[in-house]
Amino acid sequence: MQNLEDKYPLLWSIDSPKDLRRLDKNSLEQVCKELRGFIIDSLSVNPGHLASSLGTVELTVALHYVFNTPDDRIVWDVGHQAYGHKILTGRRDRFDTNRKFHGISGFPNPKESEYDAFIAGHASNSISAALGMSVADLMENNNKKVVAVIGDGAMTGGLAFEGLNNVCENPNNLLIVLNDNNMSIDMPVGGLNKYLTDITTSKFYNDVRFKSYHLLKKMGVMNESKRDKMMRMGNSIKTSFTGSHNIFEGLNIRYFGQVDGHDVMQLVKVLTDIKDFEGPRVLHIKTVKGKGYAPAEKNDTVWHSPGLFKVETGERIKSDTSGIKRYQDVFGLTLLQLAEKNEKIIGITPAMPTGCSMNIMAEKMPDRVFDVGIAEGHAVTFSAGLAKEGLMPFCNIYSSFMQRAYDNMIHDVALQNLDMVLCLDRAGLVGQDGPTHHGAFDIAYLRPIPNLTIASPLNERELRNILYTAQTEGKGPFVIRYPRGKCEGTGWENLPFEEMAVGKGECMKEGTDVAVLTFGPVGNFAAKAIEALEPKEAAKVGWFNMRFVRPLDTEMLDYVAKHYKYVITIEDGVRKGGFGSAVLEYYADSDVQIPVSRLGLPDQFVEHGLPSELYKLTGLDSDAIKAEILKHL
Amino acid sequence: MQNLEDKYPLLWSIDSPKDLRRLDKNSLEQVCKELRGFIIDSLSVNPGHLASSLGTVELTVALHYVFNTPDDRIVWDVGHQAYGHKILTGRRDRFDTNRKFHGISGFPNPKESEYDAFIAGHASNSISAALGMSVADLMENNNKKVVAVIGDGAMTGGLAFEGLNNVCENPNNLLIVLNDNNMSIDMPVGGLNKYLTDITTSKFYNDVRFKSYHLLKKMGVMNESKRDKMMRMGNSIKTSFTGSHNIFEGLNIRYFGQVDGHDVMQLVKVLTDIKDFEGPRVLHIKTVKGKGYAPAEKNDTVWHSPGLFKVETGERIKSDTSGIKRYQDVFGLTLLQLAEKNEKIIGITPAMPTGCSMNIMAEKMPDRVFDVGIAEGHAVTFSAGLAKEGLMPFCNIYSSFMQRAYDNMIHDVALQNLDMVLCLDRAGLVGQDGPTHHGAFDIAYLRPIPNLTIASPLNERELRNILYTAQTEGKGPFVIRYPRGKCEGTGWENLPFEEMAVGKGECMKEGTDVAVLTFGPVGNFAAKAIEALEPKEAAKVGWFNMRFVRPLDTEMLDYVAKHYKYVITIEDGVRKGGFGSAVLEYYADSDVQIPVSRLGLPDQFVEHGLPSELYKLTGLDSDAIKAEILKHL
Repeated sequence: MQNLEDKYPLLWSIDSPKDLRRLDKNSLEQVCKELRGFIIDSLSVNPGHLASSLGTVELTVALHYVFNTPDDRIVWDVGHQAYGHKILTGRRDRFDTNRKFHGISGFPNPKESEYDAFIAGHASNSISAALGMSVADLMENNNKKVVAVIGDGAMTGGLAFEGLNNVCENPNNLLIVLNDNNMSIDMPVGGLNKYLTDITTSKFYNDVRFKSYHLLKKMGVMNESKRDKMMRMGNSIKTSFTGSHNIFEGLNIRYFGQVDGHDVMQLVKVLTDIKDFEGPRVLHIKTVKGKGYAPAEKNDTVWHSPGLFKVETGERIKSDTSGIKRYQDVFGLTLLQLAEKNEKIIGITPAMPTGCSMNIMAEKMPDRVFDVGIAEGHAVTFSAGLAKEGLMPFCNIYSSFMQRAYDNMIHDVALQNLDMVLCLDRAGLVGQDGPTHHGAFDIAYLRPIPNLTIASPLNERELRNILYTAQTEGKGPFVIRYPRGKCEGTGWENLPFEEMAVGKGECMKEGTDVAVLTFGPVGNFAAKAIEALEPKEAAKVGWFNMRFVRPLDTEMLDYVAKHYKYVITIEDGVRKGGFGSAVLEYYADSDVQIPVSRLGLPDQFVEHGLPSELYKLTGLDSDAIKAEILKHL
Repeated sequence: MQNLEDKYPLLWSIDSPKDLRRLDKNSLEQVCKELRGFIIDSLSVNPGHLASSLGTVELTVALHYVFNTPDDRIVWDVGHQAYGHKILTGRRDRFDTNRKFHGISGFPNPKESEYDAFIAGHASNSISAALGMSVADLMENNNKKVVAVIGDGAMTGGLAFEGLNNVCENPNNLLIVLNDNNMSIDMPVGGLNKYLTDITTSKFYNDVRFKSYHLLKKMGVMNESKRDKMMRMGNSIKTSFTGSHNIFEGLNIRYFGQVDGHDVMQLVKVLTDIKDFEGPRVLHIKTVKGKGYAPAEKNDTVWHSPGLFKVETGERIKSDTSGIKRYQDVFGLTLLQLAEKNEKIIGITPAMPTGCSMNIMAEKMPDRVFDVGIAEGHAVTFSAGLAKEGLMPFCNIYSSFMQRAYDNMIHDVALQNLDMVLCLDRAGLVGQDGPTHHGAFDIAYLRPIPNLTIASPLNERELRNILYTAQTEGKGPFVIRYPRGKCEGTGWENLPFEEMAVGKGECMKEGTDVAVLTFGPVGNFAAKAIEALEPKEAAKVGWFNMRFVRPLDTEMLDYVAKHYKYVITIEDGVRKGGFGSAVLEYYADSDVQIPVSRLGLPDQFVEHGLPSELYKLTGLDSDAIKAEILKHL
């Protein structure tokens, strides 16, 4: 393979955006070409988020060329888009460590670089955060510029709307770049032609507009309320050109667009024109996910995060041929099987049909699956509405994203004790996506909510049976959490369903001294740990697969307290307030004095890396469990 | 006082909406008059939410007249508006128990009546819930109608937008009534005149429109995408009439309005016209908060929930002359005092400037206080943006509403370890607003989040000093929780500030046997309980005011374990995962064996009533604490 420095000479001359800004404007297309090539080459050997980052190559170059980063702030919404940004801001040479343990993060992270203005793991936060930064900038007279870059997908999130709704209320100079790749929803924004764009963004036109406004204000014939009307009027004129409306105009934010997001010269021109305008503005650009790499342009869902691939052929390299499927597939196929028999079942997913495998049901039953976009709160409250009228919603949300629907679960679901199933995929440590994506808190934050049942299956067979159990009426809100990644075995697809006893665990192995109580698939680490003991030691260890953290199997806990001398609890969630704490609470409430050691995630955000690396780091792998057991034998 | 039955004879003939629907249309104005009079009379002697409910009198009558409730569903957004609804749906004779212990709830509650279609304590959930209900209705072919009634204030919530964004995507016949009382934000919705309303809502006009659509579809010249364009075109025409846009049109939802929300005949006509239309619709009505009661019309903020008053004079009756202020006032005045010295301090509130007393600072420093509307998520992420750029935001959110900004606290604040202060007013039991409003969960859900400091002061003096302590740089995210209602004493306004040691409690009283550990103002109940003991008993009891649940004062816990035989923890939050669990965790981790009894809220939603009634009910009043202490002496 050719040396990267020789293959991408211009890119290799850019160690920071300052170097980029020294280049002649006419070099920028070449920079984009090299940046794109480098991203494709890099991701072919070190997997990551390809399609989104290819779509923002020109925007990234234009932003760093026009704005004085890092003093000016670029707030990326969802870091998927930001690989080009990372490469241009001093991380080109470490880009081969992207998403690796102790390597650079897959998302913008202020701890990693001063160019990363704000954290960006969960969608839709950029407008609110950047608005705060822009207001602060005005208050402190720093004369920094703040730019939020948000995709049309992230625009469906309620937080983005809340931010937008406040953008027009506060004094600020925020520039919002809407990166519209037409992926998620049909934003009803009409197509402005280039001519119109040129007119409305030209400095002269706007200078005249602003100067006349200030003149009129001085003369007392104009006030803020009239200004709004004037702005609306201006937007109306555009509307009559395009025959359509858009939400920004509705919220009185000046709107510029659409601009071809792959025309870097045009982007530089427009950004330069509108950069110094006062007041909030939206620049609407059109981009193509996967731009510049034909296979990715053709199928951006597959190429969102394609794994290893051969650049020349676009062939994706599958490393695993074991036939073992992922927990999400167990969910997906089982849901379809259940829905075929129970016509009350409805699937709901906030923008993750492929990620949670609900696409399996969606393909067969498109009318019974609702992808509501990035809108976790709505997903849960909409499910509650369905449940209120007697249907049986299965709402699937990644554990860390469920943090966004916490009140919905309490207020709209639990308070009314509705029959619905909440499936939390990506519970526990997710690996390379890191701290924003780890499903670390769900046990702790859901456990205090009355009326909930909370289960975590040991393996794919239990997952199937718990899904089966949860769908029957009268059980109230039923939460099922399971991790990202491979399940334990094969041959589960056509096993007959068995109803499971709610709130009942299973004794997997008896012992005499130490009882290991596990919640969820981490139980398999415990099994390995026990297997690795000397037979004499192993005989002293019991293993209890608790399955439910709510209700707890208190009979089993009583039994354990009576027959064992020491308890170890194991969970892949935070130790504070989690499964282990539930065990402590029960023993304290029952006046039982038995020492309990709780293994779980520590009181700090866990970094990114392979799950195996992170389980080792947090003391949850089988070695650590074995060591903990030995301490108490 | 005149007998109510004689004073409001028509209202007394309506025991259910069926009776209402039997009336001649021409009686409806009289029904409204009586309903309004009855609400005013009732609230003058039994306090409640006056202004909002007066604003929806005509809408309520029209909805129940036109729709076939309870088979048709009315989903109220925030129950404040729904008193008229309660009175017309069989609860007239129990309306004097409104908000009282074991009386009817102040909000719609499906457990209370089949006419209450969905829970409605937190704003902005109606569209999502009603959409779910409407979709379910279509799926089950029930031919029920579903109506969501949402105020313009609630429309600022991200959840409402997420719902709205999905309304146009799904097959449904949802009718959204936007009850616009111009209170919260200036919804940029243009004023359609009555003439236009009559045209666009007339059955004939729409029948033609729909029939031509279906005809064109059959002929193959029209499809869904073209239909959207047609709809936009229709909206464009309206726009050109009014010179303005609105967000509904932007989202391709058919828009009808504005209608005078106090013209019951007009409302009945319009609702009848649009009732059977297919597809989602918005009806925009204009109402006046406090309508029909002059003092309330003049000042709807004061009359939102006015307490007792004399109907004739509008004189509000203040029952308390003790001079003791509320915790919220301690927050409000102290914040102003701190902001006068620390120019980095910024106040942020989601629509609660009066409720949390941030209006005190806002009046003096309007540029440094941001009321962001009903938008808790944005409030926190916006604060994070301010903090990221070096300001010191004080964001005040009611504890139960903070459930809506949980992810923002984790992802946007804690992960970046930003210096900001989150004040949770209304923590613990709030009283008459009931289960939707109790701040029951915050200790449990915030405690697992890394980097947070979480404090609860014993009284107003500690609250002042903790606010003072929290504002200095380098402390990271600092949470301060305190309850609704009166503080303990007076004379705090001008006390000099004292820095408090973070993570340190105070021994308030030494003892020998039982250590009572308290978190927050419930400590005062413990003090009273100890006072009520015989001197010999009291000597055995120690009291420790822990102040911080995170970090815990582990030195103090060690001391307690060494010198006492029994520990009782007391908190006004859920027992699962709360302060008491933190104590259990610490002792378990330190291999300390000491029995701990945890007093706190039970594992069920707590009903409404006076705080004193609810503390008694949940075993947290001084009698219950005394009894618990005696058990262990």
